[in-house]
Amino acid sequence: MSRKKYIYDFEEADWRNKRLLGGKGSSLALMTQIGLPVPPGFTITTDACRDFLKCKEEEINSIVAKLERLPKPEERDRLIKELWEILSGLELPEGLMDEVKVHVKRLEEKRGLKFGDKDKPLLVSVRSGAAVSMPGMMDTVLNLGLNDETVIGLANMTGDYRFAYDAYRRFLQLFGKIVLGIDDKLFDEKLESIKEKYGASTDVDIPFDGLKELVDEYKELIIDKIGFFPSDPWTQLEMAIKAVFRSWMNPRAIYYRIANKITPDIADCTAVNVQSMVFGNMGEDSGTGVVFSRDVANGENKLYGEFLPNAQGEDVVAGIRTPLSIDELKNRHPKLYEELYDKVKLLERHNKEVQDVEFTVERGKLYFLQTRNAKMTALARVKTAVDMAKEGILSREEAVLKVKPEHVLQLLYPRIDESSGAKPIAKGLNASPGAVSGQAVFDPDTAVMWARDGKEVILVRVETKPDDVHGFYAAKGILTSRGGMTSHAAVVARGIGKPAVVGAEALRIDYGERLFRVGDVVVREGDWITIDGNTGNVYLGKVPTIEPELIPELRELLAWADEFRRLGVKANADVPEDARIAREYGAEGIGLLRIERMFRKPERLEVLRRVILSENSDERLEAMYELSEMIKSDFKEMLEIMDGLPVTIRLIDPPLHEFLPKPEELLSEIYEAEKNGDDGRVMELRRLYKRVVALTEANPMMGHRGVRVGVTYPEIYKGLVKAMLEATAELILEGKNPILQIMVPQVAMVEELRFVKKTAIEPVRKEVEEKYGIKIPFMVGTMIETVRGALTADEIAREAEFFSFGTNDLTQATFSFSRDDAENKFLPQYLELGLLNSNPFETLDVKGVGELVKIGVERGRSTNPNLEIGICGEHGGDPASIEYFHKVGLDYVSASPFRILIARLAAAHAALKEKSN
Amino acid sequence: MSRKKYIYDFEEADWRNKRLLGGKGSSLALMTQIGLPVPPGFTITTDACRDFLKCKEEEINSIVAKLERLPKPEERDRLIKELWEILSGLELPEGLMDEVKVHVKRLEEKRGLKFGDKDKPLLVSVRSGAAVSMPGMMDTVLNLGLNDETVIGLANMTGDYRFAYDAYRRFLQLFGKIVLGIDDKLFDEKLESIKEKYGASTDVDIPFDGLKELVDEYKELIIDKIGFFPSDPWTQLEMAIKAVFRSWMNPRAIYYRIANKITPDIADCTAVNVQSMVFGNMGEDSGTGVVFSRDVANGENKLYGEFLPNAQGEDVVAGIRTPLSIDELKNRHPKLYEELYDKVKLLERHNKEVQDVEFTVERGKLYFLQTRNAKMTALARVKTAVDMAKEGILSREEAVLKVKPEHVLQLLYPRIDESSGAKPIAKGLNASPGAVSGQAVFDPDTAVMWARDGKEVILVRVETKPDDVHGFYAAKGILTSRGGMTSHAAVVARGIGKPAVVGAEALRIDYGERLFRVGDVVVREGDWITIDGNTGNVYLGKVPTIEPELIPELRELLAWADEFRRLGVKANADVPEDARIAREYGAEGIGLLRIERMFRKPERLEVLRRVILSENSDERLEAMYELSEMIKSDFKEMLEIMDGLPVTIRLIDPPLHEFLPKPEELLSEIYEAEKNGDDGRVMELRRLYKRVVALTEANPMMGHRGVRVGVTYPEIYKGLVKAMLEATAELILEGKNPILQIMVPQVAMVEELRFVKKTAIEPVRKEVEEKYGIKIPFMVGTMIETVRGALTADEIAREAEFFSFGTNDLTQATFSFSRDDAENKFLPQYLELGLLNSNPFETLDVKGVGELVKIGVERGRSTNPNLEIGICGEHGGDPASIEYFHKVGLDYVSASPFRILIARLAAAHAALKEKSN
Repeated sequence: MSRKKYIYDFEEADWRNKRLLGGKGSSLALMTQIGLPVPPGFTITTDACRDFLKCKEEEINSIVAKLERLPKPEERDRLIKELWEILSGLELPEGLMDEVKVHVKRLEEKRGLKFGDKDKPLLVSVRSGAAVSMPGMMDTVLNLGLNDETVIGLANMTGDYRFAYDAYRRFLQLFGKIVLGIDDKLFDEKLESIKEKYGASTDVDIPFDGLKELVDEYKELIIDKIGFFPSDPWTQLEMAIKAVFRSWMNPRAIYYRIANKITPDIADCTAVNVQSMVFGNMGEDSGTGVVFSRDVANGENKLYGEFLPNAQGEDVVAGIRTPLSIDELKNRHPKLYEELYDKVKLLERHNKEVQDVEFTVERGKLYFLQTRNAKMTALARVKTAVDMAKEGILSREEAVLKVKPEHVLQLLYPRIDESSGAKPIAKGLNASPGAVSGQAVFDPDTAVMWARDGKEVILVRVETKPDDVHGFYAAKGILTSRGGMTSHAAVVARGIGKPAVVGAEALRIDYGERLFRVGDVVVREGDWITIDGNTGNVYLGKVPTIEPELIPELRELLAWADEFRRLGVKANADVPEDARIAREYGAEGIGLLRIERMFRKPERLEVLRRVILSENSDERLEAMYELSEMIKSDFKEMLEIMDGLPVTIRLIDPPLHEFLPKPEELLSEIYEAEKNGDDGRVMELRRLYKRVVALTEANPMMGHRGVRVGVTYPEIYKGLVKAMLEATAELILEGKNPILQIMVPQVAMVEELRFVKKTAIEPVRKEVEEKYGIKIPFMVGTMIETVRGALTADEIAREAEFFSFGTNDLTQATFSFSRDDAENKFLPQYLELGLLNSNPFETLDVKGVGELVKIGVERGRSTNPNLEIGICGEHGGDPASIEYFHKVGLDYVSASPFRILIARLAAAHAALKEKSN
Repeated sequence: MSRKKYIYDFEEADWRNKRLLGGKGSSLALMTQIGLPVPPGFTITTDACRDFLKCKEEEINSIVAKLERLPKPEERDRLIKELWEILSGLELPEGLMDEVKVHVKRLEEKRGLKFGDKDKPLLVSVRSGAAVSMPGMMDTVLNLGLNDETVIGLANMTGDYRFAYDAYRRFLQLFGKIVLGIDDKLFDEKLESIKEKYGASTDVDIPFDGLKELVDEYKELIIDKIGFFPSDPWTQLEMAIKAVFRSWMNPRAIYYRIANKITPDIADCTAVNVQSMVFGNMGEDSGTGVVFSRDVANGENKLYGEFLPNAQGEDVVAGIRTPLSIDELKNRHPKLYEELYDKVKLLERHNKEVQDVEFTVERGKLYFLQTRNAKMTALARVKTAVDMAKEGILSREEAVLKVKPEHVLQLLYPRIDESSGAKPIAKGLNASPGAVSGQAVFDPDTAVMWARDGKEVILVRVETKPDDVHGFYAAKGILTSRGGMTSHAAVVARGIGKPAVVGAEALRIDYGERLFRVGDVVVREGDWITIDGNTGNVYLGKVPTIEPELIPELRELLAWADEFRRLGVKANADVPEDARIAREYGAEGIGLLRIERMFRKPERLEVLRRVILSENSDERLEAMYELSEMIKSDFKEMLEIMDGLPVTIRLIDPPLHEFLPKPEELLSEIYEAEKNGDDGRVMELRRLYKRVVALTEANPMMGHRGVRVGVTYPEIYKGLVKAMLEATAELILEGKNPILQIMVPQVAMVEELRFVKKTAIEPVRKEVEEKYGIKIPFMVGTMIETVRGALTADEIAREAEFFSFGTNDLTQATFSFSRDDAENKFLPQYLELGLLNSNPFETLDVKGVGELVKIGVERGRSTNPNLEIGICGEHGGDPASIEYFHKVGLDYVSASPFRILIARLAAAHAALKEKSN
């Protein structure tokens, strides 16, 4: 047979081929083939849909491309209308209906019914099902095959006339709406007037006569709108198949795909599932339900879900009656429950994933209609992965791969306490994680003022601009009513780590009145609200939040991850509390200890200022050695916390003027002193002011900093090295095992490193070793954070025992983007315009910065094969970046304590993915 | 013979082997072998010297290494003493004296004299001669072989007793000083007292008796100091050879080599030339002279030099009698002149270089003692190269290679008018070229104040610091009494293009009295002085200077250079006068037209500010189109000047806040307005101030600039493109041939370029082409000045028709050095410490930036083989960098108009050097 096979019975389809069968088709085939009771049916493949659309491919794709650019409303409506006209004219691929007939024949045989037969009519459902899940986006027709004759047959067969006419009126409404495109409201109006006429408060209360009358009215409506009603079931089926195919291109579906970055054109398509109907609405021994194989909120290993007796699927959605919990089902129908339990667990084992299952019970008999992988909370995700590994359903590797780094991240942010029962008033996009409460304010200046008064505020804006950024820092969280995941508000909030919900479109913000409305709810400036950046939910008032904690299952999972990963994980930690958390979280040392915070104490800052303002080398060295004494204990403490693990301490990095008062401050002090007539003070301040101005730089990021300071003022580096070596020596003498690594920042040429070793490190080493009478083991290495450092890594590696990539600075230099300026000025726009897919300061830019890392690794190892190489930029905690660092062969990543857990998991994923390739 | 041959007669030595024979030995061998009359002699090779020093190699090199670090005086003196002791203990290599004897024997035969013979004594000179010229640094002994007996023989042989004893006393003094290490002053004192005793005003006036008495006193002095006087000529010779060998390591020579970056250790050594004496002091038909084969000042093709009758070489140096010019020699001794002329020209032809020749006439017979390549002015260098090519002595290629780019550079700076006869009062290092006059000032603040008053000042300092830099900008030139070619003053002056003389050590600067002294001369603040950065000379008063001009020979030479070069040469030119000069200097187009200067006119700046402060896109575009109209004529003029040649116009590059008033200015304006109670103005200024502050950046170099402005405000780029395209269209309609290239700056990703083309260039092209009704041919390309741009050049080249490397920014990004900050803060120190060999903003850093250029070229051409690639950074005018750009295959360099000539020459050199490799 040369023609493509378009249709597969559930028994014969290869359920692994989800792209061909769609998700639903695949799950129906699987369930059928592993022996679950599934109403028989067949799947018309996505190929058929593709071929259906193909003859207008170019026109359709061109319209979709225009819609992707999010045109203005009038233009959008015009395009949608145009698209509809094109789609309406399409015909099914040749021969498809012949093939359908063959398969319907088999269906008839399996069920002992006949399609269109007035005695034993076969009814079918016609459902869409694409490879990607697009919940609620596409269309379904139930009870197809009914007409004035077959409805009688159905009534006679079931002995239930009311049921048969109820099915008929349901069919007419769905068919009218979905296949014929008639406005749903028109059907609803008729339903309502019938209910009124018969005094029925709900649909179920409509008597048989009412239903019969309604069926007549529906048919009239259809004939009125369309000119005829297709009584012939084959015509109904053909029209329904076309309608489902078309629904791939309905505007809702297109916009869903655009928003979710799913290719919106015809490359992917939907399949159509034609399945014989079973009825959950045939009495109290019938019903329909949804069940999860485990609790998707907390991961507990028990069935979870609900069951609505005497109902069809759509009744559950309508929410008129309260369904039973699955536990109640167990009590009422223990045998049914047992069968359900066994089969759901079978599906879980088979799919190696918690399952979300739809089922129907027809007169005591269980049927499975769909199964898919369940959506879970991060907590449930972690717990079920570990449990399933212990139960033997998953291997440990598989369990580790089930949990994504972002799940771990979610467990680390405060989250809403679900037990509070709070109900959100609106929902936006979960732009930046964390749940937080605060008083609503409507402009950044107010945010700053209120924050100064000690208030906790949430900045609420329609959208944000660069001018608003000061408000971000003042606020606890950000809420906007407009904008997507890459809007300015989203990007900046993520960048500075504030929880944010953006694009909560239900909010109607009124800046003039200083309030927002959601429906009837009014929130005025100063009112408390809570936003949940994990979910996008917005709540009224202060909703209790739960502080993050390490659940035992996460510990266990990460211990498994540790066995699989090759990359080491260290911490960026500057202070003892960070170091302790890092060790607790599993850090294998400190990859970056920035010493600048040690100078914050006023008495130390004062000495440091003397160092900076010294007139000559001797004076400077003396002051520096004084400072050295003061900070030694800090180094001791950090080395002791990490006893037995390496601690990488970076020599001073920022430009010296950062440690001096700002020129503006000095000017106002001078002004004060002048007013007071204190001439001596004025003179002194003037001198200081002059020095400060002389040290000021045009571009401090690329100025007199890092090793450049070490070269021009070797005394400063000498004093720092002295404190580190003495701390190490003293710990050794106390019987400890300190492992010191001294790191030189900003190196662009090997000559700088050589100079620092010769002028600062070697002389001090001798001095300290003599003083303590012991040899002090330590390593000397360098940051690779200048482009030239990476390019000349072969030379630098001759003098360095380790490298640590400073990808923050490297990213700045590679793009010529100053991070401070970029994130507040043009980066948000770059992300919005799609010039960048992600913020390169968060996720490593593989093409540019990544290439330099690769070059640095290759060249460094070419002259020094023992070189230890890590990365201590912010990318060290970013999963996508970690995968790259694994690939290019780094030895470790160093991340903020907070991100250690994520890094451990991401490193394991990288190793496991590599293995599986 | 297994032992090394240490000695070569002039007849047998291979004169090409300068490293073995030294410069002098090589020239003596050459002259001998091409038939010039040279007193016979032999050369003891540098190998012998090396072997002499070798047994203490380690100790010597270690001391030299310490001296290289320029220790403090006490330490230095200690080291020098130690070195002297080591050197004094050294013995000549075994067998060397036996070999000397064999060669002396041959000498005796050639001259018919005998070494140490009391009747016909052979006298020799013993001279050093290293491969590198180190004028005046090393030692010579003349008349060696004299003692109480041989002096009589010499007297009898010459019939001139006075001459013989004069020779003897000269020998004793030189031998005593150089070989025996006796203080020269002791000899001079005795000479002075004899002169006094005999009433002789000069040496020549001392009668025979006086000379005899002086000889006795000299011998006594030697015996007194050393314990004996070595009468035996062989002992004298052995001691003299040792002394010359040792002189390679005398402190003067070591320091000379350190200063001139010649390896200061024993790797290179000196040779020793032993040559039979001829005497120019044997009467009026004798004499000694120096002659250049052409005029080294202006290049004229005539002998030039001087001749001192009846004198030995040292008498010329003593300057007691005025020598004759060579022209006078011609008149007096036409035959002699003729022989001299022919042989000097023979040497010139042979060496293909203007020669600097030493000769002696002994009783009418001409002898050549040395020839070397003459040092010439830049003017002479150019003229002689062209002349010699026309005379057939040089090929055109050779002529082009003779002239170095720095010679051309010198011809382009104002220089002292030599005809003024001004005599320098001091000499320092020629740190930054150009001659300039100004009033002396002694501190930078005064420099600024006086300059504001319209005065022209020279900043005079002992040395300069970063704090002084504002004075550099205010001054016409800089003069320091301390520091070398890489001192702060030198580096900064070169950096900003101000003439400078540094390290003029004769200046005694007194800041307190605000004056400096040179000997008796006193220069007070406000006195006029002139400095010549081309030569290092310092003059009193206003010395006339000559403005540069293009001499015809230079034009001719560059025309030849144009034939040899492959690299194109374009100009960086922003204004019509620059463009005209550039075209006149041979630029093949404009490689970089920066438009920012066009906005300086107040009425334009005002519109630009409106553009920047616009509240929305429409407002911005309207203002921008207004500006566009204003600048169109500028583009027309530039394109017209370069008619038929490409003009590359860069879209706006600096951050927008550079076009707004400074915040400080606004604050004081607000203050003023408040005082005047002008509330409206205050409000307006406050708004402006807020906007300015919002636009201010932490690191503007890496901020919101270049294409980032084009992305966020496409209206600005649209307006600029409109002006360019309309200018082009109008010129085409006028029958001209404008060749426009639009260049996008700061591109880091192809997406940026694509965006600019799509949003700004293509729409405007359509608009303008419709308006004028013609197709407008033009190219779109990009600067490659971000690291990422270079790394992703393959992607960018798909959208760009040309690349132009912006090596200024690329250097900043590669080193993470902000140029503004680096040159004023740490770069001078990096150069002083030797961490950098040259300022990477002047000479391309090949290892880092150069590699990125190479990567950019390779990747760019990999996807777009037709890509035109140039460079428009400052390095485009730097010869060493140009050589590299040639090597990596760029199509052209673009340099400031001023540097076009240099670039043309350097490009030719690069091509010729490549050919010869």
